[in-house]
Amino acid sequence: MNNNIHPTALISDRASIGKNTTIGPFSVIHDNVIVGDNCQIDGFCELGYPTPLASGSPLEIGHNSIIRSHSVFYEGSSFGDSLSTGHRVTVREGVAAGCNLQIGTLSDLQGDCIIGDYVRCHSNVHIGKASKIGNFVWIFPYCVLTNDPHPPSNITQGVTVDDFAVIATMTTLLPGVKVGHESLVAAHSCVSKHVSPHTVVGGSPAKQLCMTADIKLKDGSGNPAYPWANHFHRGYPEHIVNEWVSKINRLRE
Amino acid sequence: MNNNIHPTALISDRASIGKNTTIGPFSVIHDNVIVGDNCQIDGFCELGYPTPLASGSPLEIGHNSIIRSHSVFYEGSSFGDSLSTGHRVTVREGVAAGCNLQIGTLSDLQGDCIIGDYVRCHSNVHIGKASKIGNFVWIFPYCVLTNDPHPPSNITQGVTVDDFAVIATMTTLLPGVKVGHESLVAAHSCVSKHVSPHTVVGGSPAKQLCMTADIKLKDGSGNPAYPWANHFHRGYPEHIVNEWVSKINRLRE
Amino acid sequence: MNNNIHPTALISDRASIGKNTTIGPFSVIHDNVIVGDNCQIDGFCELGYPTPLASGSPLEIGHNSIIRSHSVFYEGSSFGDSLSTGHRVTVREGVAAGCNLQIGTLSDLQGDCIIGDYVRCHSNVHIGKASKIGNFVWIFPYCVLTNDPHPPSNITQGVTVDDFAVIATMTTLLPGVKVGHESLVAAHSCVSKHVSPHTVVGGSPAKQLCMTADIKLKDGSGNPAYPWANHFHRGYPEHIVNEWVSKINRLRE
Repeated sequence: MNNNIHPTALISDRASIGKNTTIGPFSVIHDNVIVGDNCQIDGFCELGYPTPLASGSPLEIGHNSIIRSHSVFYEGSSFGDSLSTGHRVTVREGVAAGCNLQIGTLSDLQGDCIIGDYVRCHSNVHIGKASKIGNFVWIFPYCVLTNDPHPPSNITQGVTVDDFAVIATMTTLLPGVKVGHESLVAAHSCVSKHVSPHTVVGGSPAKQLCMTADIKLKDGSGNPAYPWANHFHRGYPEHIVNEWVSKINRLRE
Repeated sequence: MNNNIHPTALISDRASIGKNTTIGPFSVIHDNVIVGDNCQIDGFCELGYPTPLASGSPLEIGHNSIIRSHSVFYEGSSFGDSLSTGHRVTVREGVAAGCNLQIGTLSDLQGDCIIGDYVRCHSNVHIGKASKIGNFVWIFPYCVLTNDPHPPSNITQGVTVDDFAVIATMTTLLPGVKVGHESLVAAHSCVSKHVSPHTVVGGSPAKQLCMTADIKLKDGSGNPAYPWANHFHRGYPEHIVNEWVSKINRLRE
Repeated sequence: MNNNIHPTALISDRASIGKNTTIGPFSVIHDNVIVGDNCQIDGFCELGYPTPLASGSPLEIGHNSIIRSHSVFYEGSSFGDSLSTGHRVTVREGVAAGCNLQIGTLSDLQGDCIIGDYVRCHSNVHIGKASKIGNFVWIFPYCVLTNDPHPPSNITQGVTVDDFAVIATMTTLLPGVKVGHESLVAAHSCVSKHVSPHTVVGGSPAKQLCMTADIKLKDGSGNPAYPWANHFHRGYPEHIVNEWVSKINRLRE
């Protein structure tokens, strides 16, 4: 049904749409939008939703991206190549994201945040403003990154999540916390203090439970489950996998 | 793209649309709808979704309102002036809301509830039936107001949230609890008992932690963070700010 | 406005649509879809979203079903008669569901799961892959059924929820747990161990609190609140109510 641009889609003449990019039925592309080549924009999407908060900067979507149906992106955010979203994603202005970001169904990026490369947000993740997310981070369903230490107020203290950290399901990260690299926050936690690298924390408020190296893979191998990058490679290009496996090995020495 | 009513929008002849109100592409306005003047209804919305539970009463949206894209409102609810919603909001029948309500992206109002003036629901808030929410209340992301003490059953015990109370992120309010005026429920809490005015509760089940007056603003000033209305005025009209600051001062004497 | 198929709906010639089934405005029905008779498909829906993971199997929706607006169903899942959904439901491939399933607004079924008959998922429920849900189960808002014991990994350990079990609001079920028949998981819990039949568990991690028989109905009758099927019949056909009330009575003897 998508023969490049569907006849029911409404595309501004001012928008820049790359080669071989398809746009689905009933989608709306506003003026201030730059979409790369070889992208798939599904139906019922709205890209470049206008806001004065973007100060005129465009929505930029890199090459080889896929935005699934019913998603809304504001103007004023930029995404590297190979962005992939689920359905009904909402992304506001001021997001600066690297390549190969995955944003799950229903996730809500409030804007004004920095996201590295190869980050995975599963379904229904809420990224508050002023968040700083590193590379190869995983954030699982129903996690919330907050930013106001005494709501409501004018103070914004964003959350920092470092490279390779994993935030499991239904976790709240309180304002200003830093989640160290390669750490793991257990499901249903509320994190009120910094999380040291390579540690596992859990509970509400979250306390240190063990080191990530203490967790064994439940595949009968007896191998450690972390660093996850040693055994989990699905969805990453091979040259990247090779690169960060060796980086992890160097960190562990 | 919105030159009042977009040509792709489907508007019932029986609906009443105010002056200078715009309706976006692919939106559907059913029969039993009254929208005020100077409103902005975005694309992909559905207003006045028919239900026998509304007993014929209309959906009423006050003047100067904005309903963002992909939102669904049933017939049988009424909203004062200056309603503002995020995207993909769902609102069922039987909501009676005052003026200047904000409903964040993905929020879900189950209907049959009362909401005062100047209430702020952030993203992904779930308001169960029989809830009673006062004025100037704040409810942060992923909070749920429940109503069934032993689910599933035919007993409905709604939650009451009094004026100026603040419910922080990822909190569950159990059936029938009353959250007192100017209180604060900390993030990731489960509230099973009434919360006294001016107190801070937290945890699961939530226990009293301190008084709101004990929390200092993290801006270096040493000033108290609560009553929040003393320092946080964004989005409220000036005459209202003046009015409730003096009301708070009277309450504190 | 729905006179069977709305003129703005886009229906593939290869899709099979039953008699007396209505399809709302701006909905898209892809090729590999079989919808039964007497169904109501609202506007802005997308049925049969293509995916190679479905291996060519269709989306099958039983007779007398209603799918509310903005919902997305992938090809490769099947639902018995009388499916009923809220708005903006997302359902991926590989769901095998029985009759009379209710899926609340915003719920997200990740696919590759088994769901029995007469199951009720309220709003914003997340069903992870490899879940096995019995008959007459209730799952309340913001519950998440997880499946990865050490995320991210290639190990999938789905959750099992047995007949008549109730999972209250904002609960996380950790990978591989089994929730026994007629048990109750209290709100805001994190379940890390199996839950015995007829027991009530709560907290994070969830511990046994009492037996379901210890909970009294808050209607002044002094009657037990569980088995809920003894007093709560709304939405179930009479022959089924009679059947499972007698089954419960047999189980209790």
